[in-house]
Formats: sequence, C-alpha cells, structure tokens
Amino acid sequence: MKQLIFSTFLFLFSLSLIAEDGSRLWLRFSETNAQANVTVSSRNNRHASTDVARQELTDHWQGQPIELRIDRRLNHLKDGYQIKGNRDRITVSAAQEVGLLYGAYHLLRLQETGADISNLDVTEIPSFDVRILNHWDNLNRTIERGYAGHSLWLWNELPHTLSPRYQEYARANASIGINATVINSVNANPRILTDEYLEKVKALADVFRPYGVRMYLSVNFASPSVIGGLENSDPHNPDVQRWWKNKVNDIYKLIPDFGGFLVKANSEGQPGPHDYGRNHADGANMLADALQPHNGIVMWRAFVYEPEWGEDRASQAYNEFVPLDGEFRDNVIIQIKNGPIDFQPREPFSPLFGALRKTAGMLEFQITQEYLGFSYHLVFLAPQFKEALDSDTFSDGEGSTIAKITDGTLREQKVTAIAGVANIGEDANWCGHHFAQSNWYAFGRLAWNYNLSSEQIADEWIRMTFTDEPNFLEPVKDMMLTSWETAVNYMMPMGIHHIFAWNHHYGPEPWCYIPGARPDWLPRYYHNADTIGMGFDRTVTGSNNVAQYFPPLNEIFGNVNTVPEKFLLWFHHVPWDFKMKNGETMWDNLCYHYNEGMMQVRDYQKVWDRVGHYVDYERFRHVQSRLRTQSRDAIWWRDAVLLYFQTYSRRPIPFHLERPMNDLEDLKKIKLDWKHHN
Amino acid sequence: MKQLIFSTFLFLFSLSLIAEDGSRLWLRFSETNAQANVTVSSRNNRHASTDVARQELTDHWQGQPIELRIDRRLNHLKDGYQIKGNRDRITVSAAQEVGLLYGAYHLLRLQETGADISNLDVTEIPSFDVRILNHWDNLNRTIERGYAGHSLWLWNELPHTLSPRYQEYARANASIGINATVINSVNANPRILTDEYLEKVKALADVFRPYGVRMYLSVNFASPSVIGGLENSDPHNPDVQRWWKNKVNDIYKLIPDFGGFLVKANSEGQPGPHDYGRNHADGANMLADALQPHNGIVMWRAFVYEPEWGEDRASQAYNEFVPLDGEFRDNVIIQIKNGPIDFQPREPFSPLFGALRKTAGMLEFQITQEYLGFSYHLVFLAPQFKEALDSDTFSDGEGSTIAKITDGTLREQKVTAIAGVANIGEDANWCGHHFAQSNWYAFGRLAWNYNLSSEQIADEWIRMTFTDEPNFLEPVKDMMLTSWETAVNYMMPMGIHHIFAWNHHYGPEPWCYIPGARPDWLPRYYHNADTIGMGFDRTVTGSNNVAQYFPPLNEIFGNVNTVPEKFLLWFHHVPWDFKMKNGETMWDNLCYHYNEGMMQVRDYQKVWDRVGHYVDYERFRHVQSRLRTQSRDAIWWRDAVLLYFQTYSRRPIPFHLERPMNDLEDLKKIKLDWKHHN
Repeated sequence: MKQLIFSTFLFLFSLSLIAEDGSRLWLRFSETNAQANVTVSSRNNRHASTDVARQELTDHWQGQPIELRIDRRLNHLKDGYQIKGNRDRITVSAAQEVGLLYGAYHLLRLQETGADISNLDVTEIPSFDVRILNHWDNLNRTIERGYAGHSLWLWNELPHTLSPRYQEYARANASIGINATVINSVNANPRILTDEYLEKVKALADVFRPYGVRMYLSVNFASPSVIGGLENSDPHNPDVQRWWKNKVNDIYKLIPDFGGFLVKANSEGQPGPHDYGRNHADGANMLADALQPHNGIVMWRAFVYEPEWGEDRASQAYNEFVPLDGEFRDNVIIQIKNGPIDFQPREPFSPLFGALRKTAGMLEFQITQEYLGFSYHLVFLAPQFKEALDSDTFSDGEGSTIAKITDGTLREQKVTAIAGVANIGEDANWCGHHFAQSNWYAFGRLAWNYNLSSEQIADEWIRMTFTDEPNFLEPVKDMMLTSWETAVNYMMPMGIHHIFAWNHHYGPEPWCYIPGARPDWLPRYYHNADTIGMGFDRTVTGSNNVAQYFPPLNEIFGNVNTVPEKFLLWFHHVPWDFKMKNGETMWDNLCYHYNEGMMQVRDYQKVWDRVGHYVDYERFRHVQSRLRTQSRDAIWWRDAVLLYFQTYSRRPIPFHLERPMNDLEDLKKIKLDWKHHN
Repeated sequence: MKQLIFSTFLFLFSLSLIAEDGSRLWLRFSETNAQANVTVSSRNNRHASTDVARQELTDHWQGQPIELRIDRRLNHLKDGYQIKGNRDRITVSAAQEVGLLYGAYHLLRLQETGADISNLDVTEIPSFDVRILNHWDNLNRTIERGYAGHSLWLWNELPHTLSPRYQEYARANASIGINATVINSVNANPRILTDEYLEKVKALADVFRPYGVRMYLSVNFASPSVIGGLENSDPHNPDVQRWWKNKVNDIYKLIPDFGGFLVKANSEGQPGPHDYGRNHADGANMLADALQPHNGIVMWRAFVYEPEWGEDRASQAYNEFVPLDGEFRDNVIIQIKNGPIDFQPREPFSPLFGALRKTAGMLEFQITQEYLGFSYHLVFLAPQFKEALDSDTFSDGEGSTIAKITDGTLREQKVTAIAGVANIGEDANWCGHHFAQSNWYAFGRLAWNYNLSSEQIADEWIRMTFTDEPNFLEPVKDMMLTSWETAVNYMMPMGIHHIFAWNHHYGPEPWCYIPGARPDWLPRYYHNADTIGMGFDRTVTGSNNVAQYFPPLNEIFGNVNTVPEKFLLWFHHVPWDFKMKNGETMWDNLCYHYNEGMMQVRDYQKVWDRVGHYVDYERFRHVQSRLRTQSRDAIWWRDAVLLYFQTYSRRPIPFHLERPMNDLEDLKKIKLDWKHHN
C-alpha cells in the first residue's frame, strides 16, 4: 500500500510538466471555458476597480450569473460589501467600487474552497479602515529583514517600465482586503521625496489604484534639511513647516489618493523632533497639519528608545508617549508593535495599548520572520496575531482587547488601522518559503476581520494554495496551527526573549558579549542568568514594568505564582528549582520546551513526507528542504540554549530527553554571514 | 533525587584535582603503603622480566606473599604461567621469565577487578605464539590511518634520548600479553634498514625487552636497490640474496632477539617479486632464508590486488596465494586481513582461511578505526574480532574456525601468530578516544586467549579503566557490547561495503565518482545500485566469489534465501522489494538499520550523561563530546546513504521513521580535509 502510494507520487510528479514555482500564491482560480455572466449596475460602470471585479469573475466564476451594484446607501459598510444570492443569481452590493472587488474575491474564495454557494447572505464590514503593509525596502533594493530576495520595486526602470509583478502584487493584496502599502523602509532615505522618485512612486500608485491599494510613504524627518536645503528640520521652524506643506501638495498633485506618511523618528539613530528639543507630538502634528487638507494621515511609530541606555527598554515607549496623550492631531495614529520590545517570538502585549486614551493607536505586526527563522522556518503567524488582537488590556474593564481598542469600538478614532511588515520580495514565490505566503494571507484576512479563527484562515489558504484533499488538509493544518508555538518552544519559551545572535536574528547567541555595546542590545540584559536562576525582574523589586499594565494585570504579571507561564521569565527572575504548575522545576520545564519544539519539527517532517504526493514535486521538495533546515536549526537552538544556561543552572538535562548533539564551544564558533540568510 | 545526584556529580568533579588525561590506560593499580612480600626463585633471579614482575607486585599487590618461580618443565605452557595459591601464599610458575611477568599482571588484574584471590588454580597458555602490533608509523612521524596524534617514536631524538612513553608502551603491552611489535608502516621506507635507523630501532628494542616485547620491522622489498645500491631487488639475484643475509646478520648483532620482517609486496604500489617476474613465494622465501639461521620469521601480507582492474577484488588474494600453497618456507606466515576486501565495518571472513593447507596463516585485525569513525566514534571491537575468530570455514568439516586454523589446532604451524594494526599515537590518552583504549586491550586479551568473551573483556577493562560501580559498569558494558553493531547499522548494514568518501574513510560518499579512477576504488563498484536493487552479485551469476568458500558455505552464501542477512548485499544484488525474514522489503530494512544505528547512538548519549558522575570530569566531558560527534555523524550517514539510494529505489523512507535532516545536494558538498580527522 505504501509502495502504491509512492508510485502514484512519482507518477503524479512526472505529470506535472510546468514547474511550480509558487508565484501564483493562493490565486489559483479555476479557468472557465465559457465566460461567466457578470453585469454591473452603477452610475460609473467603468470605474477601474469595478472593471477588475468584473474581469476576475468573468474569467474564473463557474456559477450562477452575478450582478455588481454600487449603492451609496450602504455607506455603513465602509469598503465592505453585501452578497445575496440563490441558485439562479447573485448580487454583490457595495458603497464603494473597491467593495465590489472585495466581494468578487469573496465569491471566488467560496468557489475555490468548495463552499456552498446556492444560498448566500453575506455582509462584510472590515475591522479596520487602513489595512496596510509596511515594506522595509531600501532604494538600493535591499530589504531590511527581508528574506525573499531583493525589493519588488525596480527603481532604475521606473517610472517608464512597469514590471507585471506590480499588478500581481496589488491583485494579491486586494484579494485579501489589504488596501494600503508603504513601499519604502521606515529607515527612510530622504530621496524618496525628490521629484525624481515621486514620479516613480506615482507610476506604482497608478498600477495599484484599480486594486484599491493606496500609496503611503515612509519619510525621513530630516528631509527638509537633507534634500530641501533648509538649515534644519525643526518642526517649530516655519520654513520647515512650509517645506512639508509644499511637498505634500506636490505629492497629491501626482497621487490624488495618496494616503499619508509613516515615520520612525528618534529611534535607532533616525532623526526626529528630539534633535531640536521638540517632542513626538510636535513632530507628528507638523506633518499631520500638512496632510490634513488632503485627508492624509500620519502613522507615527512608538518604537522608540533612548540612545543612552537607562531604564528597562520594555518601559520606554510607554514613558515616552503616555505623557503626550491628547496632544496629537486626530489624523495622527501611533503605530505600536504588538509587544513592548521588538517582534520577539512571543511577547506580552505592549502596555501602550489602552494607556493612550486620547490618541489614536494601531497595531504593527511583523509578517516577515525576522525573529522566527527568516524564510527558512515554517511558522504560521495567525495564532501570534490573534494572541495580540485578543489580549485583554483591562483599560476599560474586562474585555478591553487590543482589537476593540484599535478598531474604534471602545474609543473614537478618526481613522482605524493595522499594519504588517511585509515578507515580500523578488523571489518567484514572493515570500521565500511557500508557507510564508500564508502569513501575508493571514495578515490580510485578520486586518479585514479579526474575528476569523486561525483555523479558518489556514483552512482557506491550504485549500486555495495546495489542495482540499482531506488527507492533506487536516495534517497540514495541524502543522500550521501548532507551528508558532513550536518555534517559540525551540527558540524562546516561557518568556525568554532576545537571546539572538548579534549580527543576525536567526540563531541563538545567549552568550553574546560585544565590548562597548549598549547593554540592552545584548542577550544578558534580557536573560540575566546566574547560578540562582534566570529571567528579567520587571516586578516592583525590578524595573517595575508591570506597573504599566492596568489592574489586575499588574498584579497577575507581577506575581510569580499567577503570571502566565508563557511569560514567566519575561516578568520574573526565577530560581532554577522553582516549581511550576506541572510540579517540575523551571529548569526541567525549560528542557522540556526545547525538546518538545525539536520533536515537533521532526513530526512536521514526517507529516510533510507522508502527504507530499498530494502536491506538485517542486513545492514538495522546496518545503521538505526547508523543514530539514528547520529541524537542524531546532537542534542548534536546543543545544545552544540548554548548554549555555546549564553552565549557570548546573543541573542535568532530564536524562530521558535526547541529549545535545553539539558542544557549546563549537556552537559559540558559529558566525553566520547574515547575507547568506537574507 | 535527580538533583541530588547531580550535586554529587559536581562535588566529585571538584575533588578531582589532578586532570585525568587517560594516560594511565587500564593500569591504575592500587598503591600499597607497605611493600608486598615477593620472592623470586630461579637460576637467574636477575632476569629483566623477572625484575619487572617483582617490582610491579611489590609496588601494587595488596594480598598474601607471592613466590615467582621459573620451572623449565613447564615448557608446554610456552610463555604462559601457572598460578596456585591460598589465603597465605601464592606461587606463580612459568618456563620463561616473561611468563612470570604475565602471571604478575594476571594477579594485579584479579585484584583490580575485585576477583576472589583466596584460592587460585590458574593455568594460562597463550592462544598464539606471536601476538603482535602492526604500527603504520612513517619515519616522518605521521601515522597512516592513525587518529591519536603523531607517532610515538621520536626518531630525531633516538637512539640517545629515550622518551618515558617507550617503557609505558611496553608495559601496557605486557600487561595484556602482547609480545611483539612492528614499529614502522607496511608501506615501508627503505631507510629503516640503514645503519642509522637500526641503531635507533635497537634502542627501542632494548627498552621493550624487559617487557617481553620483541622487535619486528616492515621492510621495503626494493631495499637492496634503493639503499643497498644493487642493480635490482630480484629475489633470484644472488647479490640481492646476499644483501638480505648480511642485513639480517647486522640486525641480529644489534638486536639478538629480533623477531623478523613484515612485508607488503606488490600491493597498492609497493614493490615486490612480481616486478621481476617472480611470485610471492620467491620473494617471501628469500627473506625467510636470510632470517632462518636466527629463528626469525617473515609475515607476508595477503592484502594484494592487481594494479589493473579485473576480477572481483574480494577474490584476488585467494587466486594469488592458493596456487602457491606449499611453496613457502616454514618460517613464512601469510598475514591475512579478517575479510577479503579491507577492514570494512563488517565483512564475511576471507576465503583464504582454510584454503591454505600447507602454508602457515595468521589473522590481521585493524585496531585503529580506519573505517569505524576514526577516534571520534565509540566502537568496541572485541565482538568484531570474535566474529572473525569464530567464523567456521568448514575447511576440515564443521568447527574449522579461523581461530583453530591459525592457532595450530587443525594444521601444524611452526609458529602461530595474530596481528593487530595499532591505534596508538602521541595523544596523552594514547588512542584518541578513551574508549579506543579498550580495543588495544581487547586485541591483546584475545590474542592471548581467544576464548574470552567480549563481555568479560569489556567488564575487565571498565573495572580497571573507570570503576566497578555496578550502576556504571552494566550500562556502559551494554553500550560497548552493542557499539560495533550500532556502527555497522549507521554505516554499512546488511553487507554494504566501501561506500566511503574518496579522500577519507570517515564519512559516506556512495555517489563518489572520480573520472579515471579505477572502478574498484569507487563505491559504485561495491554497491551497484540501480532501479532494480543494489548489492554485489558474487554468486555464480556474478563474480562467483562464493565458490572460494568451502561447502556448504558456497551454497549458503550463494543463495539469497539462505545467506545471513548481515551479508545479504555483500553476496547478492537484491531487488528493493525483496522480502526479508521480518516480512518487510530490503529497502525498508535498510531504512530501519540506519535509523536504528542513529537511535542507538542517541541512547549511548543518554547512558553516558546518566552515569557520568561516576567518573572524572575530564574523561566524562571528552567522551560526551565524542558521542555528540558520533551522533551527528550517524545522522550524516543515514541521510547520505538513504537519500542517495532513494534516488534508485524510488521508495519512501517508512513514514514513522525520523526524516532526514539534510538534503542530498548539501551532503554531496561536504569535502572533509582528511588531515582534520587524522
């Protein structure tokens, strides 16, 4: 029987004549022989987005006739839509043309996932107004923390030559509801605002527009002085204010639906208002004032920390921004990373959420796997995104989840938004790892509707990307749904954070010491291992970061017996022999987590090999190979972390567990050339 | 409890103030406060060996008084001994002085292993007359296939400076009954026979003599022409014959008890009688004639194969030597490797054993782990040695084991002998791996008495080398006793052979192809993998090597249904789906063996970590580190072999087995610098 299956496997492989490079993403819509019957009834039936919607359905829809209808009375749907239909006819209604497009992709998704389409009554209103990707693409086409090749944007060719991938990119975003993009890195090159580059940006915006994807830009706060020739970039300098107004006006002449600016200021060496003795509100408001006449917005990042080392880094964003609460314009949104440090494998939520009561806030997720194995590890992030969205801040009593704070439910916001740092590059499969596509997909789907379950998102994505064969679907879905926890297990369980290597965030280097480096850039700052135990004391006896959380979380997090064990070492310095809920010591539990993570990856390998024959050979082999890398890396992590901390704990790894395969001294010699993993 | 044990562990570590480098081997005799009462009664009570025996006992014996007695009537014991004693007195008797020394070490071994010494009646007669180490040491102090540092012999310092290690070496050999050594490589540098070097050799022989270790030399057959200035080295040339006689006379003037020559001739580029149209008997006899007046012997190696590729390499030694049977002098012994190819992880026995009816033969084992993981892998070789010694050739009916053929039981031999290629070098611990010492020990013990069980040898060695703590002894003994089969499992199970890498014999390279290389130096020659199956057809439909075995072995080996499965692919080209005795296919069984080997090494790691606290920290850590290497290598082997043969078998590795951790293409890129593993 096994043999039969394997023979089939080979047979199927040989049938697959076209190399499957993954470039089609989840957009593998059926081709219809006869074109579908699609009609449009709206005042302007030649709107570009309507055209796309009609064309997609005409080409791929295999069911009953469809009417697309613009109805301005449906304004409460925002850019959402209604779908009503029976066996004979379906009507998609929306207040905005792009809503029809989203409705069209909804129908195609139903078709491709094998859903019942004989009786439809759907109303979809997006969770957030602005569902935006943040590209960390540099103008030289490298991508910071990008692991799928160089940037999609071919600046040298723009604006005159337009790669077909620009449109494919916009289409993929539209298909999952993403309606905005910041195409350049937050460490922004001021040249993006020169006339030369704005012409190129306009060309891209024109390609994106039919798909409802609005253009935003990261701007360098020092642009007025660097490219404007001004003496400084002080937000109180009228020349500077004028320079920005003029620049914004120029942009809107080229791109009338331009969305606004994303700003990283006074963080990690970037210029900002502090350079002139001004605060973040001064800086953000100046830009907001320039954008306001055009309905543009400023997304101002809360990821800031002092250039000189001082207080607990986890506390700094809160301390910086809470005092400014109420001082920001209403077209400024503070963009806050999900956790208080920096996209670690798992963090508790940032205490800024809920604490800003008179200032709009938004979540920033990292879709690119900077701290989760780059594009080498299979890690499905929907559960991570959900954990953040569902985190209860207690800011307005129980149920004050981050989702409800940032979507406008609990607090009025002029604009609501959610951002994800993109994992997209020039690789044929867009994201490096075929399964990394699912994180782009998951971000889009949750930005549209954060109530979707991870399970549903995985289910949809697998059916559309691979197959709906249950023998494939179920085990692969299990693999995806457990994969984040697995990665946390073999990298940083129990609240451990930032024990990555100095020159890359791929592998472990808990021992890392660089003479002269600021302490909070070194792992020791975070793990604090000694012969007593390990962990970061953020209770009242330590940095008192717990005080930034609303009651009762300050108490829960601050008590070693009530803190969720997944955050134990985030908030506490805990003795090696501390008894955990399962009755075993902290040290033994640490060993179990790393062992478990390693064994789980081995299970994924078994799953993938077993179901491989349901998919094309190319993607099978590619994923198989990456799982092998992940399996080796899980061993690397387990060995490095356990052997290093063992020098402090002086306890054996429980003897029934598989033993380390590497010597600590050998592991310390590993120095990855980061470029190899880019 | 676990914690308690680990604390004890650390406590004990801190007590071990003297770094334990393993240099004391198994010779960790107790020190007595009061000297033991040892008397000697012999005509020459000042014989050097008697002195050593008396001194060893005086220093280390803690029991009743001992009398050492030479009794020439005990000649039937050869260099063996009798021990008789009660609680009050022990008498050690021997016909030769060295017999007293062996008896002394016997007593100390009893004492150190905790045996009952209150009532002794022991008679020991060695299994073989000559129990000899073959060093493959070059005069430049590199060692061919040596993995424990450079050669012990400091040629530049000799003869005037004598390293203390020469005596320690001789003592270690004497303690296990080894009575002879060839100190230079079989790929012999002719300079060893120059006066300059013979003076150095004499100095070593003088150190070895009190310990009963006789000196032998490897000689280069072309010595007469290379260093003697003769026109050629033709054995029929009277000048050549005279040169050898004179050279031998010179040697005996320096070393009166010189043992004889070891010769590798017409093999792998070495000169030999074939260079002059003479045969091996012509060559060996010429040297034998020169040595005969001094009672010296020639050990002539059967490891020969044609410089041009032709017949099955496994058949060549037989075809070369059997026609010469009866033509050799009685002081010539043909030295035959245990298997017909070359010290592979497991081989069937060489068919030359038993086939030479009128010529003396001897076994050559390889103690150094050329094909068994160098000094990086823990592999206890007693079971391998035993499997060869116990192999039944059926040459004289059932029970015609190689042991009984080569020890003179079944055939008269003037001299009986057994050789082992040494694993000894300059490393502090002598053998690279602490456990590799056990192979030196096992060779000596089996050369003395091949009826000893592997279990008994391991038991003695562990007690003397580490501890007799049962919680250590039993699991470590289990580990040792299974370790050879384990290595065979992860390297070359089921009769696979010689799929090693081209430039080293450490790792796998079954795909190795070197343009222009002779086929029988390439793995493909041996594995013959294709889409049907794999293995070497040595049956009548193939090379018919099976015909070299005596009935019924030719039938048993020649039939795919009766051949022992451990030799299946040695003798047969077997389809991937061939059903084996467990009902599963050949391919699946191959996968099971590799998986089993890998898992067994992981078990050894668990064992070692668990019992580590019973031994000193230095040896614990050293062995722990090597086991980690072995564990990684087992994965390397499994992945390389299974992924490579899978390209032929086109079958899945059974899905419940752990999946490969490496990609075949990556493994193919591994090119070890052999020197790193020397």
